[in-house]
Amino acid sequence: AGQIISAVEAQAASISVPQNIAITDPAGHLLAFKRMEGAALVSIDVALKKAKTVSLFGGRFGTDDLTNLVTAGSAFQGLEQTNGGLVVIGGGLPIKVGGTFVGGLGVSGGLAAQDVECAEAGVAAV
Amino acid sequence: AGQIISAVEAQAASISVPQNIAITDPAGHLLAFKRMEGAALVSIDVALKKAKTVSLFGGRFGTDDLTNLVTAGSAFQGLEQTNGGLVVIGGGLPIKVGGTFVGGLGVSGGLAAQDVECAEAGVAAV
Amino acid sequence: AGQIISAVEAQAASISVPQNIAITDPAGHLLAFKRMEGAALVSIDVALKKAKTVSLFGGRFGTDDLTNLVTAGSAFQGLEQTNGGLVVIGGGLPIKVGGTFVGGLGVSGGLAAQDVECAEAGVAAV
Amino acid sequence: AGQIISAVEAQAASISVPQNIAITDPAGHLLAFKRMEGAALVSIDVALKKAKTVSLFGGRFGTDDLTNLVTAGSAFQGLEQTNGGLVVIGGGLPIKVGGTFVGGLGVSGGLAAQDVECAEAGVAAV
Repeated sequence: AGQIISAVEAQAASISVPQNIAITDPAGHLLAFKRMEGAALVSIDVALKKAKTVSLFGGRFGTDDLTNLVTAGSAFQGLEQTNGGLVVIGGGLPIKVGGTFVGGLGVSGGLAAQDVECAEAGVAAV
Repeated sequence: AGQIISAVEAQAASISVPQNIAITDPAGHLLAFKRMEGAALVSIDVALKKAKTVSLFGGRFGTDDLTNLVTAGSAFQGLEQTNGGLVVIGGGLPIKVGGTFVGGLGVSGGLAAQDVECAEAGVAAV
Repeated sequence: AGQIISAVEAQAASISVPQNIAITDPAGHLLAFKRMEGAALVSIDVALKKAKTVSLFGGRFGTDDLTNLVTAGSAFQGLEQTNGGLVVIGGGLPIKVGGTFVGGLGVSGGLAAQDVECAEAGVAAV
Repeated sequence: AGQIISAVEAQAASISVPQNIAITDPAGHLLAFKRMEGAALVSIDVALKKAKTVSLFGGRFGTDDLTNLVTAGSAFQGLEQTNGGLVVIGGGLPIKVGGTFVGGLGVSGGLAAQDVECAEAGVAAV
């Protein structure tokens, strides 16, 4: 977890976007969290829920894959309101080791594309 | 309830989509639940809420009938946020015996169409 | 799970106390639930939370072991108000296979001693 | 935060009690969290709420100071049910730098006395 958080922090620093970083186990329970200096308070809960969302889907999706699925009129309309709140904004990615899903990573603090970029750096560090 | 769950399981197995299966009484209280091996964790709560949603509507609708009704600008906009959370994704169907509503069935684990297909197998088993 | 539920049902029937029976995985997510005919509605949520409580403690305690610990003035006063609600009334027991914790069993519907008796029958069936 | 968490981990390892460790800012918002390998799932939420409780009291109390205050018949009876849940079990301590309150530390995973011991190691590391 420490390695992943460090990789996200490095990428976040390189684009000057302080991030909230959350990691959950495969069942969705919190493993680690770090708020970088200056990261928005609103994004704490978002990061936590991005990681949880990834885990509850069994690591089969990033949260950006879910965005369109829950839009009004789409297949999973309203799904984000289940499970005490899911987040379908990009920035949540599955952490895999040798192809096996080992946890969810949630990054929140910037625009969705910036969050995705930082999360990608995180999962690449494993 | 056991008969309905078995019928859903058989259909789910035949299309290789492990399902969460919930049954509520006409008042919306949980009667039975089964998570099939490999069913997504995110769908536990969804199955429970599909069944509850059917019961709270008195069995007059399947959850797929509700999808369009709660879309922004429609008759019941936002309704899914009441009652501690309703689910308007297909996969919830009323269980009827001789035309009388006796409970709600909620199936969740696949795409909406797959969930509906499995739920239909369930209510046909009564 | 089916085997455990059947064993609880048999014991419950033998003492004429209809029960709600819940089984969670080791992470606390619902695996199976059955409400016996005539079981009290109030006990549905209690059974669900007994099973969850056992799982979140990693199977190290039955819920009856926790009763005194959370009493006012005791070591874990108020603990039952965390995690969205724990239940520290007897009737929750760890399910073990060969000494390994594999899930939580929660039984609720009678007096605590009756719930414990039925839960014991359930875990003995594995 | 990293320094404090490391100090708690070292103490926790020395007494073989894996801990959940949470740090909040003075406003009660999460700054950092770490779950040690083997720490009880039930204690994640407890650690988070111990830290929050310390912060919401402005760092004037450890959570062990609050235990008796919220007991039935006492000055703050029921207070732990406010603010989305406070925790009044020992293991939450204020983090101070030069006498100034800078954050809440919540440690949970063992008996209250063990949690306090680990939290004390944490706040001493600043």
